[in-house]
Amino acid sequence: MPLACGSVVAVNPNSTGTAPLSPTERSTIRRGAKRAVAERDALWALLDAGLVCHLSTVVGGAPLVLPTGYGRDGDTLYLHGSTGALSLRTAAQGIEVCVAVTHVDGIVYSRSAFHHSMNYRSAVIHGTAVVVTGAEQKTHGLRVLTEHLAPGSWEHSRQPNKKEVAATTVLALDLTEAAVKTRTGGPNDDEEDIAADTAWAGVLPLRTVWGEPEPQTAHIAVPPHIAGRAG
Amino acid sequence: MPLACGSVVAVNPNSTGTAPLSPTERSTIRRGAKRAVAERDALWALLDAGLVCHLSTVVGGAPLVLPTGYGRDGDTLYLHGSTGALSLRTAAQGIEVCVAVTHVDGIVYSRSAFHHSMNYRSAVIHGTAVVVTGAEQKTHGLRVLTEHLAPGSWEHSRQPNKKEVAATTVLALDLTEAAVKTRTGGPNDDEEDIAADTAWAGVLPLRTVWGEPEPQTAHIAVPPHIAGRAG
Repeated sequence: MPLACGSVVAVNPNSTGTAPLSPTERSTIRRGAKRAVAERDALWALLDAGLVCHLSTVVGGAPLVLPTGYGRDGDTLYLHGSTGALSLRTAAQGIEVCVAVTHVDGIVYSRSAFHHSMNYRSAVIHGTAVVVTGAEQKTHGLRVLTEHLAPGSWEHSRQPNKKEVAATTVLALDLTEAAVKTRTGGPNDDEEDIAADTAWAGVLPLRTVWGEPEPQTAHIAVPPHIAGRAG
Repeated sequence: MPLACGSVVAVNPNSTGTAPLSPTERSTIRRGAKRAVAERDALWALLDAGLVCHLSTVVGGAPLVLPTGYGRDGDTLYLHGSTGALSLRTAAQGIEVCVAVTHVDGIVYSRSAFHHSMNYRSAVIHGTAVVVTGAEQKTHGLRVLTEHLAPGSWEHSRQPNKKEVAATTVLALDLTEAAVKTRTGGPNDDEEDIAADTAWAGVLPLRTVWGEPEPQTAHIAVPPHIAGRAG
């Protein structure tokens, strides 16, 4: 039943990805090695499919975790927010961050309460977030962030002016030190419980879906990059 | 566009909830006070609607954040996992944790890239996680966790035996120090961009939906507590 508690397990030793992740001791998954996926492509896909990350920093010796948007360009994860934001002020000092992105794909109903679980995909990234400086570089980061949140919006909407760029802190985090963990498939019950056969076992899938666009503008048709997002 | 970056902000001074949250300096939302919701009921509803939290701890001076399941009973949040899990071993020593639960409700498309945002509900809880001891208390925690993940499963499936209870660490976290932040509604564009009226603005809602149950057991009908979950 625990999700990625203890997600951190030896990465798949049989991985043959051409651009493998580079786990260090802390990002090496210690439990559930069969769930570990070492390929960088999997990390990218997982990040690209998400909208929100959970950004963790240490503030005054205590942990702080906040949800925030992000965007990915190659092996760089961009994070941003108002320059007044506590978490970004902290990270701007060059301290370490830990970032998690998680997708829940279903509830795994087992014959025993103990083996209840979730199907999920999660990525945990460790690194030092650095503040992006220079208007051109910041604007690039903002473009990546905007296009992640709302693909097509960078060209469709008004792009940031100098004041807006200045008012935003953009952080860059290298994706080198990362661990990906997934669980798929049905329950893994004990033999005795399978033999007893007294409880339903299976998966209840969960997915996120887009609703109908809710326009604020009266006479502009919903553009294709928004109307088409639901696929 | 930033989500709850800097989510941490004066709680609603007009709150009249009978059981208000008790924000401290670090859990007091400093930005976007109008988004802060101080009522404890809102916290409970937000937690009850989620499946996964992000549990942050400090390990060797560095932040660690991992997704994990949880359950709520009154003002106690239960967390658990294998006793071998890194995050729970750390928390079991009585150090501080920070836990976030986030729901993304939609993408806010603005006339300017800068004002793009998300509609969301998020809770951030600070506290010291304590290890639940005693078989009865642990079993209660496991029941809360199971019923959160899979309502109805505690009675339907085989309940944990002594060995399983012993193999699981159950943590309890008090919900006293918590902050809730939400964003709802359409975009908040600058007047000039509204006047220009050149880009679509509105909200693309996002929601999670249950799929059809995928049975592993051949001849047991999907029980009502599972079949009825989709509402």
